[in-house]
Amino acid sequence: MEFFFDPSSVAVVGASPERTGKSLLLNTAGSRDVAVYPVNPKYQDLEGLTCYPSVAAIPHPVEMAILLVPARFTPQILEECAAKGVRGVMIQSAGFAETGEDGRELQAKCVAIARQAGMRLWGPNCMGLVDVPGNKYFTFMSPNITGVLPPHGNLSLVVQSGMLSAGFLADLATRRGIAVNKACSIGNKCDVDECDVLEYLLGDDTTKGVALYLESMPRGRRFMELAEGASKPLVVLKSGRSASGAKAALSHTASLAGNARLTQGLLQAVGVGTARDFHQLVDLGRSLSLLPEIPAGARVAVLTFSGGAGILSCDLLEDNGLPLAELAPATLGELAKVFPVWMPPGNPVDLWPAMELHGPGPTLDHAVQAVSQDPNVDLVLLHTFLGGTQDQVNLARYKELLADQGKGMVFWALGLDQPVKEFETQAQAEGVPVFGELARTVDCLAAAARPRARAGAVPRPQASGNPLPTDLPPTLGVWDEYQAKRLLRAWEIPAVAEELVEDLEQARAAADKLGWPVVLKGLLPGEVHKSEKGLVCLNLDIPDKLEREFQRLKKVMEGQGSLVLQAQRKPDYELIVGYLKDAQFGPCVMLGMGGVTAELEPDVAFEMAPLDPSRALAMLGRLRMARRFDGFRGETPLNREALAQLICSLGDLGASHANISQVDLNPVAVCQGEPLALDANIIWEA
Amino acid sequence: MEFFFDPSSVAVVGASPERTGKSLLLNTAGSRDVAVYPVNPKYQDLEGLTCYPSVAAIPHPVEMAILLVPARFTPQILEECAAKGVRGVMIQSAGFAETGEDGRELQAKCVAIARQAGMRLWGPNCMGLVDVPGNKYFTFMSPNITGVLPPHGNLSLVVQSGMLSAGFLADLATRRGIAVNKACSIGNKCDVDECDVLEYLLGDDTTKGVALYLESMPRGRRFMELAEGASKPLVVLKSGRSASGAKAALSHTASLAGNARLTQGLLQAVGVGTARDFHQLVDLGRSLSLLPEIPAGARVAVLTFSGGAGILSCDLLEDNGLPLAELAPATLGELAKVFPVWMPPGNPVDLWPAMELHGPGPTLDHAVQAVSQDPNVDLVLLHTFLGGTQDQVNLARYKELLADQGKGMVFWALGLDQPVKEFETQAQAEGVPVFGELARTVDCLAAAARPRARAGAVPRPQASGNPLPTDLPPTLGVWDEYQAKRLLRAWEIPAVAEELVEDLEQARAAADKLGWPVVLKGLLPGEVHKSEKGLVCLNLDIPDKLEREFQRLKKVMEGQGSLVLQAQRKPDYELIVGYLKDAQFGPCVMLGMGGVTAELEPDVAFEMAPLDPSRALAMLGRLRMARRFDGFRGETPLNREALAQLICSLGDLGASHANISQVDLNPVAVCQGEPLALDANIIWEA
Repeated sequence: MEFFFDPSSVAVVGASPERTGKSLLLNTAGSRDVAVYPVNPKYQDLEGLTCYPSVAAIPHPVEMAILLVPARFTPQILEECAAKGVRGVMIQSAGFAETGEDGRELQAKCVAIARQAGMRLWGPNCMGLVDVPGNKYFTFMSPNITGVLPPHGNLSLVVQSGMLSAGFLADLATRRGIAVNKACSIGNKCDVDECDVLEYLLGDDTTKGVALYLESMPRGRRFMELAEGASKPLVVLKSGRSASGAKAALSHTASLAGNARLTQGLLQAVGVGTARDFHQLVDLGRSLSLLPEIPAGARVAVLTFSGGAGILSCDLLEDNGLPLAELAPATLGELAKVFPVWMPPGNPVDLWPAMELHGPGPTLDHAVQAVSQDPNVDLVLLHTFLGGTQDQVNLARYKELLADQGKGMVFWALGLDQPVKEFETQAQAEGVPVFGELARTVDCLAAAARPRARAGAVPRPQASGNPLPTDLPPTLGVWDEYQAKRLLRAWEIPAVAEELVEDLEQARAAADKLGWPVVLKGLLPGEVHKSEKGLVCLNLDIPDKLEREFQRLKKVMEGQGSLVLQAQRKPDYELIVGYLKDAQFGPCVMLGMGGVTAELEPDVAFEMAPLDPSRALAMLGRLRMARRFDGFRGETPLNREALAQLICSLGDLGASHANISQVDLNPVAVCQGEPLALDANIIWEA
Repeated sequence: MEFFFDPSSVAVVGASPERTGKSLLLNTAGSRDVAVYPVNPKYQDLEGLTCYPSVAAIPHPVEMAILLVPARFTPQILEECAAKGVRGVMIQSAGFAETGEDGRELQAKCVAIARQAGMRLWGPNCMGLVDVPGNKYFTFMSPNITGVLPPHGNLSLVVQSGMLSAGFLADLATRRGIAVNKACSIGNKCDVDECDVLEYLLGDDTTKGVALYLESMPRGRRFMELAEGASKPLVVLKSGRSASGAKAALSHTASLAGNARLTQGLLQAVGVGTARDFHQLVDLGRSLSLLPEIPAGARVAVLTFSGGAGILSCDLLEDNGLPLAELAPATLGELAKVFPVWMPPGNPVDLWPAMELHGPGPTLDHAVQAVSQDPNVDLVLLHTFLGGTQDQVNLARYKELLADQGKGMVFWALGLDQPVKEFETQAQAEGVPVFGELARTVDCLAAAARPRARAGAVPRPQASGNPLPTDLPPTLGVWDEYQAKRLLRAWEIPAVAEELVEDLEQARAAADKLGWPVVLKGLLPGEVHKSEKGLVCLNLDIPDKLEREFQRLKKVMEGQGSLVLQAQRKPDYELIVGYLKDAQFGPCVMLGMGGVTAELEPDVAFEMAPLDPSRALAMLGRLRMARRFDGFRGETPLNREALAQLICSLGDLGASHANISQVDLNPVAVCQGEPLALDANIIWEA
């Protein structure tokens, strides 16, 4: 990827004296440390540079080429680039897969040419690449926009929408004082995709965090693996979640949108933050890239100039699960020195009355000094009003004081436009996150306190690859629950005790053995809706009832299928555990709460398989209803290790057999804390 | 209240040649149509005005007085004001109830003096009142802040925090191009409170909507009644929800925070929007005050310059339950005229390729014209980039086109700082809401499509006042369930059939009569945890079991209490219906989902009692699980009318008897769609 990000020489094919061809040339030629060769048969020179009729005609080596020419000329130019030894081509022109069948064919042809030549393709239909601190603008975006970007910024963007690498950057820079490090617009991503770019950025020293806007994740598995191994914070905004959004995504980027819930669940599993808005994406990203990683339960001190804002901060912190720090007696004593006598200091630290006595600057200095020394404080949330007294916020000093103690700091800044802008610029230079809305400020603080990707943590296990038991030959399609549970038991997954029964005598004997009451089920080939079809008989507590239902089922089933008898278990609650082989994310496991409520408001967690118990245990904690596992209302606490092992075993079973496309353990009953699969489905594909 | 908002004459007590006393005088004296008399014994004139040694010394009538003097002088000055015939006094000074016991006493003394004299008190500890279009600044906030407020604005603020009526207004004005109509800072609200001010603003012609930031709602019932009758949209940010926040609220405004969930539920019931952040409060408020009221299911057309932003808009609209409009064939035909051939128009309307062909301005004009005529479109969400082409957004024309068809319009504006600011100013003048973040834009659009307060709708019923049945004399404290259900049945609330049983023979006869299986319960005086104490025997399906449990209970209860036998019902699901008499909100009813899940993630709706069936039916719809009532998974749909009637009857029972402090119907079983109280508690207070 280096030849895209830092090429020594670039051919600009389609450079011209006007419009986008001119902007592209000016931007590229104005970039640092790069030789630029305009290519256009119509001109001999452009903007003071020699213009060549073709790539072949350039009398120098060319490392990268940027194409801004009508789509139909692209294959021919790619052949020329290949012959010239160009390593990477960035196609910024539109008119490819996003325009329909013809465009898709054209795009495929381009990819074939590049693959053949060992060349990488970036785009097409993209805005290219911007590296703000590196001063490289490989993009046709208007130069008057690039002129407004401030030089700082340690957050890099990878975006599947041109707007986000152009107008959006100008908005961030001029309206919010925010600069990015690199912005990579990947367009149709016919070859280079978010994984390639992310991999590069993870190794890029000046990038401290990456925010991605994605409409599709075709190499989802690879993405998740990269994210899990990342040593930098990542945030993703994945669009195309809604039915209508997915439709628009399809026509817009010619790529399929993934399953929203699975995507979200896996991002959470690998410690990636998620956003629902463009600006929020950048706010979360810059907050994460500036703040230190914060342990769970980090305690916050709030320094404010407004009692009301202090109270609201408490509400917002509580919503986000961030505890308010109990200030140490020494800190309270220090604060009392500047507080009026009638007001005992506390947290939130309402500095207004003290500011009226001593002035805003000295009061704030004193308070920051005090909380920086407090062992009960991990994070400081500062509120400030900028409107003439902004010179009194000693940002650099506060940052030093707090950083010395390993404490993070964020600002909520309110005030007059110009002073706030100056403060934002100063804060950006100091690496301190500043936000304009209080709720956003607290949300970003909370994001910094959530577990991040665990680079270098427990490696993922390999699938055992254990073969199926010889007495369990696979059947194509849906396995009946008896067959499915036999296989599950072979992987040591606890499943309810049961026996096939052929006649009444066997049924009675089995019931006596398994223990009354029992459940009798009719298994018909391919039938997955047993309850709805009246094939499940519950509460058989005496032989008479068993006999009656046995006869009834025999009749209903007309000699087909088989009957299975199970011990009836009364669960405290039910879970769903599943396995699926996803086109984008590969083998995955799911854990969810069962029951009707969960069906209306799903409560699920996902992981990639195979997985180890520590990852499975973390899944339990990600359910909204996780508190239930502690033994809610006097129930026996869940045997978490047993459930984690069950999930791991299921993941191993699936990952060891590529033919298994789906497994449903539904329900997994929890009885006296122990998980037990009561029903199961396996789908075996050819 | 008129004498606070539009006084003909104002005495400024505590005017001075410097600091806040000077700001207050300058602001007041600079206000329109008001005679201003500075009062301060130290000076003879101030800022060119004659300064009087006391209120009494002013040789003119004084309608309103503003006090900015040390708190201890206040009672004496109030006496003077009363003698002078002043109608309202605004105490802006601090040093009252917010400072502790002494301050509380001082404040009470002030209230007593005012009440005695028939004078109203505003404050203390407040920033007073700002009326931007009326050009009245009765506040000590710095005049350089008032100078930056633009003159437009139809949203008024009522705030229990000084910051929100000062620095926050400057932030809104200079950073977001937003002005308010009036900002009322009510401080400790010792006399004039949010209800008084709201009532005034509801009658104020220039106020089109009201946003309130409140830390307490001591006259909660009155507030809700005003809100329900309001013909203007209201939005509330209620802080002090968290335990820590409530503590801070207590010390900050010397007022108690209400029950967060009840407050939220009632605000929803009376059609008031709610916010979680200051800026969001204003964004929601201005959106509601500018947009027409939008029917449920309003269909949105999205006009965008970015495919990615179009897709994300779909996601956000779906999250908010707003459907995307299916554009009519005529509209699609119109759009096709400007679209490139390879791109079929759809919704979201991605105008970028068309803009490249025809220029942004003409393309947008054409598209707005087309969707304005589309009968399938109720709302238009426009995305715009301002950076040189902003002159091409014909705001006034678009507004006219859409308003003619009764359609609302909101803008998401991205771009360079200056052009965006100009656009915001223009939009504010045109009355079109503009937002800087896409998610906020959609959230505000969605808020406009939620049911508003229903001014003049169904009036609230009166409590029937029916007396208790003569054979049901009230007992103090907790009633046992048998007694409670007898009273419920007198109010025609369906409760499970049951009989008191004294011996085994009675029990068997009752079971035969009620139908097996039965439930036997032991009722002990004051005992509300029957299940936990082993006093509930379920699944008694044969006489043997009944006998065994009857003997066991008799023994356990040692001759105390009584035994009740009930038919055992197997509910499809369980609800909780409750009544409570709240200190702030008076008689209220609650409806909630039952079960453990709901206990971990409460799903509840509230209303004030007494209430009519239409309000009770609306409660059903406000539960997150409302879909279940339609007959989820083949269950019988809920008899909604029966449940609504049950809720109304319970509300009437409570509202008719002031001694009833609480009623719990828990659970209310839903069996084949019919609600039936299985257990009940009534708490009767002296």
